[in-house]
Amino acid sequence: MATYVLVHGSWHDGSAWRAVVSRLEQLGHAAHAPTLAGHGKGVGRAVDHNDCVRSAVDFIVDRDLTEIVLVGHSFAGTVIARVAEEIPERLRRLVFWNAFVPEPGSSLLDECPPHYREMFHELAAASDDNTITLPFPVWRDAFIQDATPETARATYQQLSPEPFQPFVDRLDLRRFYESTLPKSYLNCTEDLALPPGEWGWHPRMSSRLGTYRLVEMVGSHEVIFTDPRRLADEIATAGRD
Amino acid sequence: MATYVLVHGSWHDGSAWRAVVSRLEQLGHAAHAPTLAGHGKGVGRAVDHNDCVRSAVDFIVDRDLTEIVLVGHSFAGTVIARVAEEIPERLRRLVFWNAFVPEPGSSLLDECPPHYREMFHELAAASDDNTITLPFPVWRDAFIQDATPETARATYQQLSPEPFQPFVDRLDLRRFYESTLPKSYLNCTEDLALPPGEWGWHPRMSSRLGTYRLVEMVGSHEVIFTDPRRLADEIATAGRD
Amino acid sequence: MATYVLVHGSWHDGSAWRAVVSRLEQLGHAAHAPTLAGHGKGVGRAVDHNDCVRSAVDFIVDRDLTEIVLVGHSFAGTVIARVAEEIPERLRRLVFWNAFVPEPGSSLLDECPPHYREMFHELAAASDDNTITLPFPVWRDAFIQDATPETARATYQQLSPEPFQPFVDRLDLRRFYESTLPKSYLNCTEDLALPPGEWGWHPRMSSRLGTYRLVEMVGSHEVIFTDPRRLADEIATAGRD
Repeated sequence: MATYVLVHGSWHDGSAWRAVVSRLEQLGHAAHAPTLAGHGKGVGRAVDHNDCVRSAVDFIVDRDLTEIVLVGHSFAGTVIARVAEEIPERLRRLVFWNAFVPEPGSSLLDECPPHYREMFHELAAASDDNTITLPFPVWRDAFIQDATPETARATYQQLSPEPFQPFVDRLDLRRFYESTLPKSYLNCTEDLALPPGEWGWHPRMSSRLGTYRLVEMVGSHEVIFTDPRRLADEIATAGRD
Repeated sequence: MATYVLVHGSWHDGSAWRAVVSRLEQLGHAAHAPTLAGHGKGVGRAVDHNDCVRSAVDFIVDRDLTEIVLVGHSFAGTVIARVAEEIPERLRRLVFWNAFVPEPGSSLLDECPPHYREMFHELAAASDDNTITLPFPVWRDAFIQDATPETARATYQQLSPEPFQPFVDRLDLRRFYESTLPKSYLNCTEDLALPPGEWGWHPRMSSRLGTYRLVEMVGSHEVIFTDPRRLADEIATAGRD
Repeated sequence: MATYVLVHGSWHDGSAWRAVVSRLEQLGHAAHAPTLAGHGKGVGRAVDHNDCVRSAVDFIVDRDLTEIVLVGHSFAGTVIARVAEEIPERLRRLVFWNAFVPEPGSSLLDECPPHYREMFHELAAASDDNTITLPFPVWRDAFIQDATPETARATYQQLSPEPFQPFVDRLDLRRFYESTLPKSYLNCTEDLALPPGEWGWHPRMSSRLGTYRLVEMVGSHEVIFTDPRRLADEIATAGRD
């Protein structure tokens, strides 16, 4: 059995993983879901990418976790790649779930299509604290289109504004790309958070992992809410030896 | 509950939707399936694209339908895009089911791969009334490969020759592309009516919709015959709020 | 009912098809699974591509099989394309299952991404008999990622070194490309043996078949071991009239 550390994406916090953690525990694994610095309700949002990475590393080191299968969703692909540079000796495998795998020297924003870059810049500029609030129509149609209208609205209430600075910070990542840690990519086939095709998740991001294990499931960017049991089962398939 | 107006593709008429209409009604929706001008058995075929659009608009206006989820299959993507220009106030959402989303100023033919364009031109020239009859081997392998041999033959008998002029007419579509109507794309993952890849339906056509909702299901171009109940369920998912 | 001849891929021999043969027989078909020259445990490996083709042709002619649905997996796409040039009168349909469809004049190696070409050349050079032994980590993550760890290890024991010369031989294939035999492509959607995208199986290989029938199923390159019953059912769908 493995120790899973599940790192949430933008607008989310660790509580989004609750049903996934339950299922992984039911399968006999240990599972932890930290909340990254600057994320979650009611905390300060003046953080950069290193703060996010540091909070994940501290979570792991404080609990002395080892033999970890480290899972990152969406934005958190950039975080787990950096964690793998900092504490590789504690990790057994990396699982990128519809997650960014930035090219060396790139920021998350560099990896987004131009119209996203513009939208994010405009939303951040319109905030008073350099954060991005996801518009509901984008959430409903491009993030969680497989939910009922009721679930789409209820889960939108769980989101919080995303700090913009971690999107902008460029990441060296040379040590990540030299790492021989086993890597998996879990792809939800209807994920629209990046537009399918030229700018899509798979195979654009996945192929950067070199030899990697691909696991796919049906669903949107937010199966964490719409199909968490299946998500947990596929994470276990992506994470096993 | 919504009012669905289902617009058939080439070689088909409204009767092809029968099982889909039944299922949508069972789910509590209203559902209508008009036959476009120049389509169906035993009618004149000297129509252009505007005639097709006009017949769909008239169907809707005559019945005073409003709050419509307007669904177009294949060729009918070009029709519903034009209907959305004519009577947007009656529409709630557009659903493109493996449907053409032509670029402004393009014809359907412009959006087809070169070997299709040639085949269509040759078939139309070989007819005595500027229509295209779909060859059975193409129907069987590229349109309805998920059917039994018996269903493939029986459904082929339901087809009728397709007027060629609506394929050729160029469509302005500037008002369509300025429209803020919510849009969905329903993609059957084994659809070969356009060849997968560079000339395929998804993401080539779907991505032109801007922010859109993607729904996928397994199946060929003709799940209207091979899996109508699942098709209706996915149309309902694509069409809901 | 049809007569299936199932041609294995690299590192495999005919015994890998056992469960698929059983299921096809249960469905009422005849099914044969020859072992290609230079393949299987304990045989000489000094063969070229023509030897492989000749062994498949001899198998068919010796048994006087006709009305064959000829299925080729992976490497064997190159074999069945050549068999279709030699004895077309005995064939009813070709089924390429995540198989190579080389361009005229190409070798299998020409169709592989550059880093594969290098790896294969290095592995062949490192052998004492010009063969390639598949490294276990590649088998586990890129070929059979949908297996349990136990199945991944047990099936690895069934593999044998692959003769390199058939990868290198260039194939004319002009008669294959002029053939009007019906053709199907069966695509496993998580197959990583060729990297998804630019160098992937589908639609890159499939689209070279011209008008073809596409059938897809979930799974890795090795559903022959992880889901043979479903594989047999999909082969029957790909192979029927």
